[in-house]
Amino acid sequence: MTKNTKVNAAILIIGNEILSGRTQDTNTSTIALWLNSIGVKVNEVRIILDVEDIIVDTVNQLRKNNDYVFTTGGIGPTHDDITAQSISKAFNLEYEIHKEAFKILEGYYKIGEFNEGRQKMVWMPRNANLILNPTSGAPGFNVENVFCLPGVPSILKSMLGGLQNRIVGGKPILSHTISLRTVESEIAKSLTDVQNDNKDLEIGSYPFFQAGKLGVSIVLRSEDQSKIDKCSQEIFNFINKKKIEIVDR
Amino acid sequence: MTKNTKVNAAILIIGNEILSGRTQDTNTSTIALWLNSIGVKVNEVRIILDVEDIIVDTVNQLRKNNDYVFTTGGIGPTHDDITAQSISKAFNLEYEIHKEAFKILEGYYKIGEFNEGRQKMVWMPRNANLILNPTSGAPGFNVENVFCLPGVPSILKSMLGGLQNRIVGGKPILSHTISLRTVESEIAKSLTDVQNDNKDLEIGSYPFFQAGKLGVSIVLRSEDQSKIDKCSQEIFNFINKKKIEIVDR
Repeated sequence: MTKNTKVNAAILIIGNEILSGRTQDTNTSTIALWLNSIGVKVNEVRIILDVEDIIVDTVNQLRKNNDYVFTTGGIGPTHDDITAQSISKAFNLEYEIHKEAFKILEGYYKIGEFNEGRQKMVWMPRNANLILNPTSGAPGFNVENVFCLPGVPSILKSMLGGLQNRIVGGKPILSHTISLRTVESEIAKSLTDVQNDNKDLEIGSYPFFQAGKLGVSIVLRSEDQSKIDKCSQEIFNFINKKKIEIVDR
Repeated sequence: MTKNTKVNAAILIIGNEILSGRTQDTNTSTIALWLNSIGVKVNEVRIILDVEDIIVDTVNQLRKNNDYVFTTGGIGPTHDDITAQSISKAFNLEYEIHKEAFKILEGYYKIGEFNEGRQKMVWMPRNANLILNPTSGAPGFNVENVFCLPGVPSILKSMLGGLQNRIVGGKPILSHTISLRTVESEIAKSLTDVQNDNKDLEIGSYPFFQAGKLGVSIVLRSEDQSKIDKCSQEIFNFINKKKIEIVDR
């Protein structure tokens, strides 16, 4: 499991409404779970303001350092939707009417309803590849390794399936969770020993508070099921010795 | 409202569990809403892996570009909690036992229960200022403008109040939301005109889908209530002309 065999991605959430705290981001989790299932690991997420220079600089940095970049937000019809023009600038491409997108939206709306606001949504970087939107018509797009999706969670979700064949992932990242009725400090030392014995597997420890009781979830992540199985066994060994109650295995 | 009068912050979420999609981050929203109330604007959020070099580099970049940096996660007792040691490295400070934190936890736990795992939580950068934790004992800390908080949302929330007198904010950022029964494309042009007429006020437009009906929330943000009032009036003017139903004002 060297670094070279991993396929990685960054997620870029574009939107003042997340930074103001008004809206809670849920797209990170949606995209990350989907990417894991096709063998892509999310290395980094950034949430930035709706400001062109910031979008351009951040996209240009992320697309060099990651195999894929997924942006969310800013592709609607209003003045604060500036993702498409910013991506055009980042790639030094013309920002222009995308003929295929125009045809799609012309067909989607009733005659007379494809107004100026809606027409803004077909302006894209030249030769962008469309990402079809089965929910609300207006497509996303990708330029090279940068995939631009909408911010509305239900619409974004509906568009991921259609992307699958454009993303070349590695082995799916498998995970296994063991939940215990204990506190982190009781298992910290044993867990460190297990991590030291299983260096190429990721072990996370997460306290939880559920139905009035404290617990800890241990999450094992690897591309290799046999490594997860071996590590689980080592964890059960110390759990049994310490007589810790297992909530979920 | 020039850039100089603004006080800004970055939030740094440290944790593989957010990047894997397993856990949804809620701390961004909690911290951002609290910061807004004391006149600090969040400019940027980053979510990064539990990897020392990445934490060190990111902290050093963010603390130079922002008045304040708030980190969440990685200050517990387990092997994957490496925030305190990473912050020590970022500031080139010794990573050592913090005497005051030691006393607090020694008093918090029953005799014999302040074990090795728990003692890890009192290792901090030399001379760090503690952030008291009324929920579970183990304090956070700050070094200069970098404030380190835990990842567990309920504990983090309980610690923010005690921080208030250490953060010097500007004027509180006020916001007003107008929710309409319409779609974005119907109001996009009028809203652009209003934004052009009110350049120093932030206008966001956010579609929603509630109880089976589509709508749009227009969010106005400024430090100046009179600017929000003026802008609201301009919005009501075009809403009335267009005979759009108001859901909430």
